[in-house]
Amino acid sequence: MRDIGTPESPSGFVEIFNGLIELTVPQMFALGIRVVELREGHVVGTAPIEGNGNHFGSMYAGTLFGLAEMLGGALFVPSFDAERFYPVVKAMEIVYLRPAMTDIRAAASLDPETIRRLQREAKDDGRAEFVLDVVITDTRDQPVAKTSATYQIRSH
Amino acid sequence: MRDIGTPESPSGFVEIFNGLIELTVPQMFALGIRVVELREGHVVGTAPIEGNGNHFGSMYAGTLFGLAEMLGGALFVPSFDAERFYPVVKAMEIVYLRPAMTDIRAAASLDPETIRRLQREAKDDGRAEFVLDVVITDTRDQPVAKTSATYQIRSH
Repeated sequence: MRDIGTPESPSGFVEIFNGLIELTVPQMFALGIRVVELREGHVVGTAPIEGNGNHFGSMYAGTLFGLAEMLGGALFVPSFDAERFYPVVKAMEIVYLRPAMTDIRAAASLDPETIRRLQREAKDDGRAEFVLDVVITDTRDQPVAKTSATYQIRSH
Repeated sequence: MRDIGTPESPSGFVEIFNGLIELTVPQMFALGIRVVELREGHVVGTAPIEGNGNHFGSMYAGTLFGLAEMLGGALFVPSFDAERFYPVVKAMEIVYLRPAMTDIRAAASLDPETIRRLQREAKDDGRAEFVLDVVITDTRDQPVAKTSATYQIRSH
């Protein structure tokens, strides 16, 4: 099959995943949370300050949480068969480092060995677990929050 | 001053706080997060399953987070002078126990001694910190998530 995507979004994963959010988790989509890069083992997401301000003009704590939480679900898409498996978040911790006054950005990666292990465990055991540690940054590249989340991949 | 409120909402704190959310954190309001009881040292909040479903028909993880996170800010209202102080969330951990398939509810309390300590520290040091441990339940009173969050009260 010819790959019609770009290096940031091979096979159109970015468009597929943002479309999935809009359709199936509209409240996340309404927070402005989007992926901007998505390929096997790597995802970058963003959320805008516009519409997400709080009582201090900085970003609502829940939008920062939502951006980082989404990354684990996005990494599922290029590496797993959605007809057999689905991802869930089991736990997440967020530490707010400074007020986010701009758009925010966060990246997460899984190395090829980890992906292969998860694929094998999901196939053999019906579930597999992974942890993502993420730093959320503002447009000046300053860290505004850090998170650690545990996800499970489960068979339907 | 005659108190025009109810036992669940003396001085109209419930209406005041929900109005504050709508005005100043519209993204939280859009998630359907509301207080239903608010008095000194005690708050109860809810969020609806309707409009908050995800890809499995259970509630979006971010809405569960947002409900519990809000409680610390709500407890600030009856006990602190908003012209001198404001609340911020410093860190929060959430553990998802089972999918939330119904409306959700969560309560949090601060005892009178703790409130007096926080008021004294905020006045003397310009900041004061407290931790809230919360269990989120569904309409069958089953726990669906538990959280622990650290808040700071700071002077403007």
